[in-house]
Amino acid sequence: MVADFRYAEVPTEMPDLRDGQILLENAMFGLAPTMRNWMDPPGNSYYPSVPLGQPMLAPSAGRVLDSANPRFPIGARVSAISSWQDYEVIDTRGRSVRPMSADVSFSVGMGPLGMNALTAYMGIMEVGRPRAGETVLVSGAAGSTGSIAAQIGSILGCRVVGVAGSTEKCAWLTSVCGLDAAVDYSRGDLAEQIAAVCPDGVDVFYDNVGGPILQCAVEVMNRYGRIVLCGQISGYGTSKPIPGPTNMMRLIYGGITMRGFLLGDFEEKVPAAQRQLFDWLVQGRLVHREDVRKGFENLPTAFGALFDGTNAGTLLVSTQPYSAP
Amino acid sequence: MVADFRYAEVPTEMPDLRDGQILLENAMFGLAPTMRNWMDPPGNSYYPSVPLGQPMLAPSAGRVLDSANPRFPIGARVSAISSWQDYEVIDTRGRSVRPMSADVSFSVGMGPLGMNALTAYMGIMEVGRPRAGETVLVSGAAGSTGSIAAQIGSILGCRVVGVAGSTEKCAWLTSVCGLDAAVDYSRGDLAEQIAAVCPDGVDVFYDNVGGPILQCAVEVMNRYGRIVLCGQISGYGTSKPIPGPTNMMRLIYGGITMRGFLLGDFEEKVPAAQRQLFDWLVQGRLVHREDVRKGFENLPTAFGALFDGTNAGTLLVSTQPYSAP
Repeated sequence: MVADFRYAEVPTEMPDLRDGQILLENAMFGLAPTMRNWMDPPGNSYYPSVPLGQPMLAPSAGRVLDSANPRFPIGARVSAISSWQDYEVIDTRGRSVRPMSADVSFSVGMGPLGMNALTAYMGIMEVGRPRAGETVLVSGAAGSTGSIAAQIGSILGCRVVGVAGSTEKCAWLTSVCGLDAAVDYSRGDLAEQIAAVCPDGVDVFYDNVGGPILQCAVEVMNRYGRIVLCGQISGYGTSKPIPGPTNMMRLIYGGITMRGFLLGDFEEKVPAAQRQLFDWLVQGRLVHREDVRKGFENLPTAFGALFDGTNAGTLLVSTQPYSAP
Repeated sequence: MVADFRYAEVPTEMPDLRDGQILLENAMFGLAPTMRNWMDPPGNSYYPSVPLGQPMLAPSAGRVLDSANPRFPIGARVSAISSWQDYEVIDTRGRSVRPMSADVSFSVGMGPLGMNALTAYMGIMEVGRPRAGETVLVSGAAGSTGSIAAQIGSILGCRVVGVAGSTEKCAWLTSVCGLDAAVDYSRGDLAEQIAAVCPDGVDVFYDNVGGPILQCAVEVMNRYGRIVLCGQISGYGTSKPIPGPTNMMRLIYGGITMRGFLLGDFEEKVPAAQRQLFDWLVQGRLVHREDVRKGFENLPTAFGALFDGTNAGTLLVSTQPYSAP
């Protein structure tokens, strides 16, 4: 993986910005599994394909150094879809750029108030919509998105069960995050394990993983269950499309809804969601784990950690070329 | 298929009804592909499994001969989930039984106002919810459910495209039912054919078929598209579960919803739906084709016609043991 990347220093001129553009100084990058999809060759219309030789597209946080958009004045802190370079001219009309409060650090802004947490919020609140007393199952539950989705389920009064890939992660979910149960998928029969801790079935399944976990979940879904398709990390990096569950009749007879979504589908609800997440955070109702690494040159290694399970929590790389955090 | 059934005459006593039961005289049976699933061995909890040697479970219309439920008095006409026998005691609290208006024949009551038409109505109006100007794609479009779903799409102001299995069926869909286009899946590349007649993509896919057609549809769905899972006839009769589409990331990036449903999920909306279907029918806005066969002994042969494509429209078998229709 690391050998697939090349580090380059490129002298550039201060550009003249066109209307709507900003010059962003990146200070911190977020690493998300879906970036692996952005490395695929072009050929589908639904996610970006970064050409070979170009800087990798990535979520970032930084400061506006020059601006032709009054919404993001010079000196403003923003989070954005930028790319792995210290400076980038971004057209704010074509790329996601969001203001970041001066009250929070870059790591909080990119962590519990950032893209993954917001994705979790929208997936649970807008797509899954669990009601108090229902059972919520979350795959990839110890991850940056899953851990927030699971905890929001608890805040809503649900019984929440997480699926994760190690004893340590499961222990963190139940003892620190307050989940009702956690299942370690590395410990044998997943369907049996899930059935054992979900005696009343599952009403909402928040899926970050797909593949066999999705299949198991379909089998235990209750009538009118909702499956939130957030990610399918089990299939990222393969050249094949990621198959759906193998029993569609179960969806029909169960009245089950399966719905995919992206954070961008709910852009207008982001400010309110950030306020809510911030409140829960300061009230101590939301636990967040971050894994902040340092140094621009460590971006590829850090990215690889998403796929070998060695990261714990939101994976960020602080690069801070000149300004203080 | 026919050899799998046995005809038997069984002398029975007039039973004493318990509270909630009715004695139904069946006059007409409806044949639906999903009945094939009811013939599978037990082993899943989500559809009935008729034991070997027992009369086959089936939709029927008939008259109440004796009643211990004031909602269905003696002489009332009803539609019900009954079974392949002239007389049956049905517990109305555990089985679907619906009153049938005295103004319509059994074949209209079981056809354009019956289970399949109501299923189409709920699937389009409550699950797919297309808006005027959107494109609706329907598989199994010449069938009993599909043809109603497609025409309701047209009534709602949508561009409607049907998928069917013969030139004759496609011609009927466009020239009689008023669909905007029809695709004959027996004529080569389905994905290409669908793309050619859906230049603006598909907003709602009403799926009766599943398998390769579902896969093709997923690829052309527009952003926020809705897939209505009504049936998966392509997989009925196989012993394997029916696989879902092979590209879940398409659902995520498209914000696409896939939802299964049964008519029973919307039971309280059935009376209003029947009134609406009746109005459309008398206004000539809804075309319905029925294929009424005669004779109890022809039930197995008629059922087989659902799977070899030789039926055209709602397949009914009139048995009328004693009463006039």
